[in-house]
Amino acid sequence: MAAKDGNPKARDKGITPQGEDFSAWYNELVLKAELADRGPVKGTMVIRPYGYRMWELLQARLDQMFKETGHQNAYFPLLIPESYLKREAEHVEGFSPELAVVTHAGGKELEEPLVVRPTSETVIGEMFSRWISSHRDLPLLVNQWANVVRWELRPRLFLRTTEFLWQEGHTAHVDGADAMAETMRMLGIYVSFARDVAAIPVIEGEKTPGERFAGALRTFTIEAMMRDRRALQSATSHYMGDNFSRAFDITYANERNELVHCHTTSWGLSTRMLGAVIMAHGDDRGLVLPPGLAPHQVVIVPIGRGDERAAVDEAAARLATDMEARGVRAHVDGRDASPGFKFNDWELRGVPLRVELGPRDLASGQAVVVARLGAEGKQAVGLDSLAASVPDRLSAFHAALLERATSFGDEHTAAADDWDAFAAQVGEGFANALHCGRAECEDDIKAGTAATPRCVPSDGEPEEGTCVRCGLPSAYGKRLVFARSY
Amino acid sequence: MAAKDGNPKARDKGITPQGEDFSAWYNELVLKAELADRGPVKGTMVIRPYGYRMWELLQARLDQMFKETGHQNAYFPLLIPESYLKREAEHVEGFSPELAVVTHAGGKELEEPLVVRPTSETVIGEMFSRWISSHRDLPLLVNQWANVVRWELRPRLFLRTTEFLWQEGHTAHVDGADAMAETMRMLGIYVSFARDVAAIPVIEGEKTPGERFAGALRTFTIEAMMRDRRALQSATSHYMGDNFSRAFDITYANERNELVHCHTTSWGLSTRMLGAVIMAHGDDRGLVLPPGLAPHQVVIVPIGRGDERAAVDEAAARLATDMEARGVRAHVDGRDASPGFKFNDWELRGVPLRVELGPRDLASGQAVVVARLGAEGKQAVGLDSLAASVPDRLSAFHAALLERATSFGDEHTAAADDWDAFAAQVGEGFANALHCGRAECEDDIKAGTAATPRCVPSDGEPEEGTCVRCGLPSAYGKRLVFARSY
Repeated sequence: MAAKDGNPKARDKGITPQGEDFSAWYNELVLKAELADRGPVKGTMVIRPYGYRMWELLQARLDQMFKETGHQNAYFPLLIPESYLKREAEHVEGFSPELAVVTHAGGKELEEPLVVRPTSETVIGEMFSRWISSHRDLPLLVNQWANVVRWELRPRLFLRTTEFLWQEGHTAHVDGADAMAETMRMLGIYVSFARDVAAIPVIEGEKTPGERFAGALRTFTIEAMMRDRRALQSATSHYMGDNFSRAFDITYANERNELVHCHTTSWGLSTRMLGAVIMAHGDDRGLVLPPGLAPHQVVIVPIGRGDERAAVDEAAARLATDMEARGVRAHVDGRDASPGFKFNDWELRGVPLRVELGPRDLASGQAVVVARLGAEGKQAVGLDSLAASVPDRLSAFHAALLERATSFGDEHTAAADDWDAFAAQVGEGFANALHCGRAECEDDIKAGTAATPRCVPSDGEPEEGTCVRCGLPSAYGKRLVFARSY
Repeated sequence: MAAKDGNPKARDKGITPQGEDFSAWYNELVLKAELADRGPVKGTMVIRPYGYRMWELLQARLDQMFKETGHQNAYFPLLIPESYLKREAEHVEGFSPELAVVTHAGGKELEEPLVVRPTSETVIGEMFSRWISSHRDLPLLVNQWANVVRWELRPRLFLRTTEFLWQEGHTAHVDGADAMAETMRMLGIYVSFARDVAAIPVIEGEKTPGERFAGALRTFTIEAMMRDRRALQSATSHYMGDNFSRAFDITYANERNELVHCHTTSWGLSTRMLGAVIMAHGDDRGLVLPPGLAPHQVVIVPIGRGDERAAVDEAAARLATDMEARGVRAHVDGRDASPGFKFNDWELRGVPLRVELGPRDLASGQAVVVARLGAEGKQAVGLDSLAASVPDRLSAFHAALLERATSFGDEHTAAADDWDAFAAQVGEGFANALHCGRAECEDDIKAGTAATPRCVPSDGEPEEGTCVRCGLPSAYGKRLVFARSY
């Protein structure tokens, strides 16, 4: 049932309002919008067609960006000998607690247990060592789209699941300079993807040593602010130095025919990004999807009964065909249900533009257009010009969504120069603060406020001073971004 | 080194000729063409970029065909409770010997072991039972692209690997008629894909009871003849009746509000299809790729040294751009290597069309075109018309490849009416023969000749008589196709 002002609120769809319990809002919305469901094994996820279509759209765009920068896709095995993980000391220490282990196969106990890949540095390292022999083989730029398994004690759909889908890029280079350039190039691609496709503004920067990937020399991240003002790490890019090259003997003969270790990188973005889209844009009425990732960018709802309906259906179909010819994903909702039910349903599912078309609209040669962000209200648009206007309307929708998220981030980010201000600000959003760089001090901040350093932002202004927590001299030469996070 | 007639033979590339040892030819070619490599765990496979690109092209075409017939993609968990497989008696019996089992995860022994999916009927059955309640929810048409694990004792790259990639469609219907229609529709899609994209003619038909999928009431298959005249089962489509619906309680309320069990189907095609492409078309010089699955449909080799080379490179780049604008996947081989090396390399890798362009060609406004099938020899083609002619050349290449495979199949298929003729024919290729339908008799034939019934072909002529092996009255009402197979 719609609320009296005609603007159905969360309760009408059975979703807890964000302000009451953000976590409940999220869980209920993911299930009600049929994005995903819980699998039978604890922590596993079923990605339903509506959610999977978003993943496909994400894949297509990101994959194109990878190919345009010279990467090729390949596929490496799911099962990895347990001994491989042990070759890189920090790597095995980081991942051991999360491993799923196959001990029996083909009806027998295995001589060596196999781990289900939590990430593929080790098996790819082994293959790189077989494939690379000369400087002519470098750089080797490979990406894989795959599932990985990391045992989760506190699972959450899309955000932390025992199995998730991702892409993991793995590259080998002649030296550290070339590998670092790749690390930053791929971070830049994630920034572009987040902004230009997902309409999510992100802060890019480097992780502190305590937050690095297990086995990396440097880890870079993009961090986004969710509507509950927490941070979500949305993708990472790692420079490994020669750690994995030494562990897996990835060497090449340089131009003077000397045997040299490669420098490697890895970088990944997962189904977690769909969680970011839900939480960065959603409201009490449901999802708000960026056009780049919306399974349906426009839904046309034909209205009317009996004799009047055939002409409306025909006009709706024509409109959809016209939009599709312009590269728009349009859908006619021909279900046997009331218009009100359909409006609510597509609002919940976050469709950017809704077109309402009834017999009276048709008679006057127009349709009613409603954007999911809602600021413009209902607009009557001539049927002749409607389809042609959709690409621009979608661009404007994307821009408005990005602008809204950017303003929201700005409003809830502030500098904090003393501990009281810091503790208050991380309850409100992101705090920019100086820090001493000591792991014990990071732990202390986390214990006191539940906030962690999200990154040393790439574009931060040079600044020196004292640590916001302990008063020792600051490290990093600039402020860090602190926040509570997912 | 090229043989004296200028037509490099297998030995020149270090590949055993097909006629000498087909199996060695296959294994060597897969590795040398860099399609795949063996993974560290026995039976696992690494799909290298050239092979994976073929898989991507296959996926794109098949996925489009699925979507056009109303299917949506989704993703279901890799790990399945062991108890799920036991709910369908034949299913667990069929798959138990091949299972990989996770017994430990997150540092602890699990209460219930988890199997790594060998196929997903069970977990999808569980989810379908949650999602389906009314006849309005049907048909439910879902597909998933995923990896599966089946422990292999005699692994072979692409053909039988411990882990492989595939798509598995799973659908639920109101009754058997609707489910059977879906089963046959999807078989038809596989037939079209094999013929129109892979250039492989297939025999479609039904499996005998002994060759059915574990848990299916009826299994349909497409069978292709390889160049060693063995059969390769290239895709299957199964009608499950209500077996899985009863095991997982997939029911719906019909229009009279009675609770009824659904009828379900599943259908799959895997990376094995790439093995079919290699073995159906390859020759002693290497791969021969159908244009629909070729990573590069045309490779342009610029020839010349020093000052002359810049103009050639420029013309080659222009040619490639012109071809790409026409939807052709063109590649300029700018490597620092001899033209002869490049010709051999792309021949080995099966590129349909090679364009040779040197300074003298350029001066006379032409290039040399060589098709991988080779019948036409070298053709001089004017540079002005070359790019425009490529789409037609590729269509002709596809048609010639299909025609060659069709003739090859026809030449090596014959009816066999008595046991001696049968035993001789299955050594030569496919034998069409009447059979009694008894499992013991199938076993007897297999023990005597290594041949198995591949299918009861859909288009077989009605015929009755006596079994080619035991002389009892024939079953099935038509001849079966028998062959040795992969």
